Amino acid sequence: MDSISLLGSSPACTKVCFLPNGLKNSSKEGPSKPTVAIIGTGDFSKSLTIRLLRSGFHVVVGSRHPKRAAESFPHVVDVTHHEDAVGKADIMFLAIRREHYSSLWDIKHLLAGKILVDVSNNRRVNQYPESNAEYLASLFPDSIVVKGFNVISSWAMQSGPRDSSRQVYICSNSVDARRQIIEMARQLNFIPVDMGALSSAKEIENMPLHLFTAWKGPVLTTVALSIFFFAYSFVRDIIHPYMKTRQSFFYKVPMEIVNRTLPGVAIVLLALVYLAGQLAAAYQLVYGTKYRRFPPWLEGWLESRKQLGLLSFFFGCVHVLYSLCLPMRRSERYLVLNMAYQQVHANIENSWNEEEVWRVEMYISFGIMGLGLLSLLAVTSIPSINSALNWREFSFIQSTLGYIALLITTFHALLFGWQRAFQEESYRFYMPPNFVLALVLPVTVIIGKIVLLLPCVSRKLKRIRRGLDSYQTRANHERPSAVHLSPERVTIM
Amino acid sequence: MDSISLLGSSPACTKVCFLPNGLKNSSKEGPSKPTVAIIGTGDFSKSLTIRLLRSGFHVVVGSRHPKRAAESFPHVVDVTHHEDAVGKADIMFLAIRREHYSSLWDIKHLLAGKILVDVSNNRRVNQYPESNAEYLASLFPDSIVVKGFNVISSWAMQSGPRDSSRQVYICSNSVDARRQIIEMARQLNFIPVDMGALSSAKEIENMPLHLFTAWKGPVLTTVALSIFFFAYSFVRDIIHPYMKTRQSFFYKVPMEIVNRTLPGVAIVLLALVYLAGQLAAAYQLVYGTKYRRFPPWLEGWLESRKQLGLLSFFFGCVHVLYSLCLPMRRSERYLVLNMAYQQVHANIENSWNEEEVWRVEMYISFGIMGLGLLSLLAVTSIPSINSALNWREFSFIQSTLGYIALLITTFHALLFGWQRAFQEESYRFYMPPNFVLALVLPVTVIIGKIVLLLPCVSRKLKRIRRGLDSYQTRANHERPSAVHLSPERVTIM
Amino acid sequence: MDSISLLGSSPACTKVCFLPNGLKNSSKEGPSKPTVAIIGTGDFSKSLTIRLLRSGFHVVVGSRHPKRAAESFPHVVDVTHHEDAVGKADIMFLAIRREHYSSLWDIKHLLAGKILVDVSNNRRVNQYPESNAEYLASLFPDSIVVKGFNVISSWAMQSGPRDSSRQVYICSNSVDARRQIIEMARQLNFIPVDMGALSSAKEIENMPLHLFTAWKGPVLTTVALSIFFFAYSFVRDIIHPYMKTRQSFFYKVPMEIVNRTLPGVAIVLLALVYLAGQLAAAYQLVYGTKYRRFPPWLEGWLESRKQLGLLSFFFGCVHVLYSLCLPMRRSERYLVLNMAYQQVHANIENSWNEEEVWRVEMYISFGIMGLGLLSLLAVTSIPSINSALNWREFSFIQSTLGYIALLITTFHALLFGWQRAFQEESYRFYMPPNFVLALVLPVTVIIGKIVLLLPCVSRKLKRIRRGLDSYQTRANHERPSAVHLSPERVTIM
Repeated sequence: MDSISLLGSSPACTKVCFLPNGLKNSSKEGPSKPTVAIIGTGDFSKSLTIRLLRSGFHVVVGSRHPKRAAESFPHVVDVTHHEDAVGKADIMFLAIRREHYSSLWDIKHLLAGKILVDVSNNRRVNQYPESNAEYLASLFPDSIVVKGFNVISSWAMQSGPRDSSRQVYICSNSVDARRQIIEMARQLNFIPVDMGALSSAKEIENMPLHLFTAWKGPVLTTVALSIFFFAYSFVRDIIHPYMKTRQSFFYKVPMEIVNRTLPGVAIVLLALVYLAGQLAAAYQLVYGTKYRRFPPWLEGWLESRKQLGLLSFFFGCVHVLYSLCLPMRRSERYLVLNMAYQQVHANIENSWNEEEVWRVEMYISFGIMGLGLLSLLAVTSIPSINSALNWREFSFIQSTLGYIALLITTFHALLFGWQRAFQEESYRFYMPPNFVLALVLPVTVIIGKIVLLLPCVSRKLKRIRRGLDSYQTRANHERPSAVHLSPERVTIM
Repeated sequence: MDSISLLGSSPACTKVCFLPNGLKNSSKEGPSKPTVAIIGTGDFSKSLTIRLLRSGFHVVVGSRHPKRAAESFPHVVDVTHHEDAVGKADIMFLAIRREHYSSLWDIKHLLAGKILVDVSNNRRVNQYPESNAEYLASLFPDSIVVKGFNVISSWAMQSGPRDSSRQVYICSNSVDARRQIIEMARQLNFIPVDMGALSSAKEIENMPLHLFTAWKGPVLTTVALSIFFFAYSFVRDIIHPYMKTRQSFFYKVPMEIVNRTLPGVAIVLLALVYLAGQLAAAYQLVYGTKYRRFPPWLEGWLESRKQLGLLSFFFGCVHVLYSLCLPMRRSERYLVLNMAYQQVHANIENSWNEEEVWRVEMYISFGIMGLGLLSLLAVTSIPSINSALNWREFSFIQSTLGYIALLITTFHALLFGWQRAFQEESYRFYMPPNFVLALVLPVTVIIGKIVLLLPCVSRKLKRIRRGLDSYQTRANHERPSAVHLSPERVTIM
Repeated sequence: MDSISLLGSSPACTKVCFLPNGLKNSSKEGPSKPTVAIIGTGDFSKSLTIRLLRSGFHVVVGSRHPKRAAESFPHVVDVTHHEDAVGKADIMFLAIRREHYSSLWDIKHLLAGKILVDVSNNRRVNQYPESNAEYLASLFPDSIVVKGFNVISSWAMQSGPRDSSRQVYICSNSVDARRQIIEMARQLNFIPVDMGALSSAKEIENMPLHLFTAWKGPVLTTVALSIFFFAYSFVRDIIHPYMKTRQSFFYKVPMEIVNRTLPGVAIVLLALVYLAGQLAAAYQLVYGTKYRRFPPWLEGWLESRKQLGLLSFFFGCVHVLYSLCLPMRRSERYLVLNMAYQQVHANIENSWNEEEVWRVEMYISFGIMGLGLLSLLAVTSIPSINSALNWREFSFIQSTLGYIALLITTFHALLFGWQRAFQEESYRFYMPPNFVLALVLPVTVIIGKIVLLLPCVSRKLKRIRRGLDSYQTRANHERPSAVHLSPERVTIM
C-alpha cells in the first residue's frame, strides 16, 4: 500500500509526489525556507508535514520508532529519532499529548533557545489548572513556547486553503517568536491572529471546546419563557374549560397551545433586545459618563442581544408556519361544516361581522409586515453580509428598523387581543389572556424609547456619548470625531 | 479605578497587562518593531494604542495635557507633549479632528519628512470641499500624508480580529509610505486595500458615511411602483364598486389591495433586471463594439440589477405570505359559510367547476416554482456563497435560471388573469385589471430575449463580446480566451 | 475619447490619472517595485495593467502593433515590441491564447531564465491533453513557468478588492518563482493559494470551467427519485381510479401529485445523508481501522452529503409551500361546500371525528418542528456562518440535530400514514401507498443509528476513530488528542 494513501485524501496525494521536484528547483534558484521539525507521528503530524512540504519547507519528523513511522510519511521527509530531529531545526512543532511532554525531558538541553510550537488540545474546557502551553513553558524554561494551530483539525490542515475557517490564533511571550510563527502561518495559507502573551493560551485552548458559549444565556431565557407561556396557556385554555364545563379541548395542545406560546416568547425576546440598550442608556444618564463600566449582568445582556434577536426571529417564523397551517387542520374543517349546518338551520342568510373582519385583516397584515422587517434584520446578521455594511447602515437596520419592527409586532398583538383584555370572561381563574402578559415588556420598552427620544433626554445622552461629560470636557479638542464605543455599537441581531 | 477598565472591554484588559513582559522578551531576542506616535488622546487613540501594543509596537502618545491623559493609557505607553512624541517616531497617527490640525502648526518643522496617518472622519458626506487628508497635506507639504483606518471604529480597533469587517482602505501619494502603512495594517490583523494616490482620500472618507448608496435608485423605483399599483387597485377595486353600487369593500385594503400591489411590483422589478441587460446588448449591437461606454443612466441601471432582483424577491416573498394568509381571514370564513347557505337553498348538490379548479391549481403551482427558483438566485447573492462559485456557475444561476424564473412567474400571472383580460366587465372606469399592467414589461422582456436568441442576432452579439468587432479584429490573436467584461458579468441578484 | 474610458469602468479611471504622480514620488523616496512585462493587449492585459500600476509596479506591454495598441493603455505604460518588452523585465505575464504561444518561439533566447506567468483559460474541461502551463513549459524549457490568476476575470482584475472572490491559485515547479508571484498576488490585493508543483496547473485551469461538479451526483439522484415518486403517484392516484371507476382526478396533477412527490424525495435524501456515515462506520468496524481508504463510491457519497442535505431541505421547503397552498385552491372550496350540503341534507349536527383531528394536528406539528430543525442545519451551511463555528458546535448541529430532524420527519410521515399502511384498500394495483416506500430508508437509517449507539458497538468505533486500532497501538503515545479525520468531519449540510 502506498504510504500516502493511508491519509485518506486523494487530492493531496497527487501533489505530494511532485514536491521533491519542486524542492530541487528551489535549492538551485533561491534562499530556501527553514527546516521545521515535528515531534510526534500522529494524524496531525502527517497533515502538518504535507502542508509544510507544499509550502516549500523542509520537514524532519522526530519519532520513538522512526523506522515504523517512516512508512506513513512522504519519502522526502526525514523521519528520525527525537534527538536527531531536534538538532536539525530551530522551530519545532510538538504534535504529542500533554501527558507525553515530560518524555522530552531527556533532550531538554537540545531544546534550549529553540521555538516550541504547542498545537495540543484538551478534551474538556479547563481540564487542567494551567494551559498546556504554559505547562510546557514551565517544563522547558529555556525554550521559547508559542501556542497555535490547535483550532485547525488534521483534516483542515491537510486539505487546506479552500476550507472557510482559516483563522489560527497565536500567542507567545516572545514577540519575535510570535512574529516568526505568524509569518509561517501566513505562508501555510492560514490567517494568523496575534493573541499577545502566552497567558492567552488558556483562551486559545478552550476555543475548539466551546459549545455555543454565547448562546447559553439567551437559550436558557428562551426555554424558561417557553415553559412559562406553554404552562400558562395549558392551564387557562385546556384545564379551565375542562374543570368548568367538562369540555375536552386537549386536541388543541399540539397546535393551538404551541402557537400561543411561540408568539409570546418571540415578542418578549424582541423586547429584551431593546431593553438592554435602554438600561445601558439609563445607566449612562445616571452616572453622566460613558467611561464607567456597566455591571457584569448588563454587559452580558448587551453582548447577547444578537442571539436574543435571532431566537426571537426563529420563534416568529415558526409561529407564522403554525398560523398558516391552522386552516389545513381537520378540526377547522369540522368547525366550518358545523357552522354551515347551524347557519342553514338558523336560516341566517349573511353572517358577516364587519368588526371581526377588520380586526383579523389588520392584525394579519401587521404580522406580515413585522416579520418582513425582522427578516431584514436577520439577513444582515449573516457575517458576510454584515461585513459589507458600514457602521451607519448597520445601525440604521438594527436600531431604526428594529424599533419599527417591535412597534409593528406590538400593534399586531394588540389587534389580536382587541377588546378581550377588558372583558370579564377573559379572566379565567383570574388569569389574564396570554397576550396581555406578552405585551407588558414590549409596551414598557416602547414607552422607554419615547422617553429617550424626548429632546431634553436625548440631548444629554448625545453629549455623554460624544464623551463631552464632566470627566472629560477639558480634553475635548483632542478627540477624533468618530467615536463608536457606545452600547449601540454592539450588534442586535 | 484601574486605568484600562475605563475602556469598557474586559478581554483586552487582561492581555495588556502582560505586554510589558512580551516587549521585554522582544528587546532581548530580535529586532524590535518601530516606535509609533499617536497625536490625540480620545477613544480612537486609546484603542489604537492597545492594538499597536498587542502587535509588539512601541507607542508614544502626544497630548496637550500629558499628565491627566496618562491615567487612561496602559503604563507601558509614554504619554508626553506633542513635540516630544513627534521627535520619537517616524510614523505618526493623527487621532484629532480636522478643526485641530492647525494646532500642530507650531511643530511643523518637526513633522517634515515624517509619515502622518490621517484617521479622521467627518459627520456628513462632502462636508468640506477637499478631503481631510488633502487638507492636511496642504497644511504640511513637507510631510508625507497617508489616509487610512477611518472605516474602523474604536470598538473594532480594540476588540480586533474576530470582527468580520477587517478591510482598511489606504491611500497616499508616496508609494513607499503607502507600502509601510499597508504592511503595518497587516501586522495589526487588518486586510489592507491599496487605493492608490491621495486623491482617493475623499472616497475613503465618504465610505463610513454612506447609507445604502447602491440601494437608493432601486428603492425609489420600488416605492414609486408600489404607490402606483396601490392607488390603481384602490381606485379600481374599492372606489369603482362604491361609486357604482354603493358597496363598501374597504375591508379589502389591508390585505387584498396590498396583495395586488406586491406581485405587480415584484414582477415589474424582475423584468427591469433583465431589461437592463437587453438594452446593453442592443447598444452593443447598434454600435458594433463592446468598447464603447454605456450612457450613465444605463451603467447605473446595470449596476443596480442585484438590488432590483433582491427587492423583487423580497416583494415576492411577502406576496406569498399574504396569499397564504388569505384562507385564515374571517371574511373568507363568512364568504364560505354564506356560499354554503346559498348552495343548500339553491339545492345544488355539486358546485364543482372544472375550469376554475384547473386554473387555480396551475397558477398556484407555477407561483411556487417561480418563488423556488428566485430563492436560489437570492441565496447565491449572499457574499460568502457567491464567492464560492466560479464565473460559469454564477452566470448559469443568474442568467439561465433567472430567465426561467421570469418566464414561470409570467405564466403564473397569465394563469391568474386567464380570460379576464378579454372581458368587458374587467375594464372598470376603462382601467384594465392590475395584472394586465404588471405583465406589459415582463412580456416585452421575454420577447426581447427571444429576439436575442435568434441565431443571426446571437452570433453577432457573441462576436462583439469576444472583442472580434470592427475596431479590434486586427489584434485578435493577442487576446486571452477568458474575457468577461460583458454586461452579463455584473451580478443580477 | 480618453484612452482609459474605453475600459468601461469609471472608478478606476479617476485613479489612474494620478498614478504618474504617485510613481514619481516613489522613485524619490524608496526602493521601487520591479518592472513587470505583459505580452498581449486584450482586455485581461488592460485590466492587469491598471491593477499593477495602482499597486506601484512599472508596466511594460509587449504587442505586435505597439502603436495602435498604445491608444488603449494609460500613458505611463510603455507599449512596445515583444523583444523590447521582454528585455525590460524579469517577470512576464502571458495574456495571449494557447494557440499563440508558439509565436514567441523567435524570442526564446530572451525568455530564458525569466518567470513566465500563464494566465490563460480554455473553453472546455480537459480541452487539451496537457495543461496550457505545462505546454508552455515544454515549449520554453529554459524559462520558469508559473500558473495563476486565471480564475480572475478581467472585470474583477480591474475593479478589484471589494469583490468577494479574491482567491488566486498559483503553482510552479520553482518554489522561489512561486513565492515571488504569491507575494505579488498579495500586493495586488488577492488572496494567493499555494497549489504546489506545475502538475496542479490542469486542476487550476479546470477551476473556472466547472459547473457545479460537486452537485452532479446529488442532483441526478434527486431527479431520479422525483421521476420515480411522481410516476408512482400518478399511476396509483390518477390512473387507478380512472381505470376502476372512470373518475377523472387529473386536476390533482399540478398540486396534489407534486406535493406527494416532494416529501418523498425530501425524506429519502435526508436518509441518504446519514446512511453514508453509517456505511463508513460499518466499513471501519469490519476492517478494524480508520486508516484504510473507503471505496471510491463511498468516498464520493460522503463528500456529497452537504449537497444531498441542502436538496432535501429545498424539497422540504417547497413541500411546505405546496401544503400551505392547499386550502387556497378552488377544488378545496368546492369540496367543503359540497360536504356542507351533504351534512345539511343528512342532518348531521356535528361531524367531529376525534381521531382524525388528533392525527392531523400531530403530523402538522411534527412537520413544522422537522422543518425548523432542518432550517438551522441549512443556515449553518452558509460559508461565513460555518466558519464562525468550531468543530464541536458544527458536529453538534450536523450530527445530533440532524438525526433528531430525521427522527421527527419520520414521525411526521408515520402520523400522516397512520393506519392506512395496513388497510387493504390502500394497495391499489397491489402498490403500497407512497409514504410506505418513502419510509423504508429513513426507518432503516434510524435502526442503524440505534445499533451504532449500542455500548458494545460504539465503544469499539470510538477506539478505532481515536486511532487505537491493531495497526497503531504501538505508537499511540505520539498522537495529539485532537484527531478529526473521521468521516463525521465531512459536512452534512
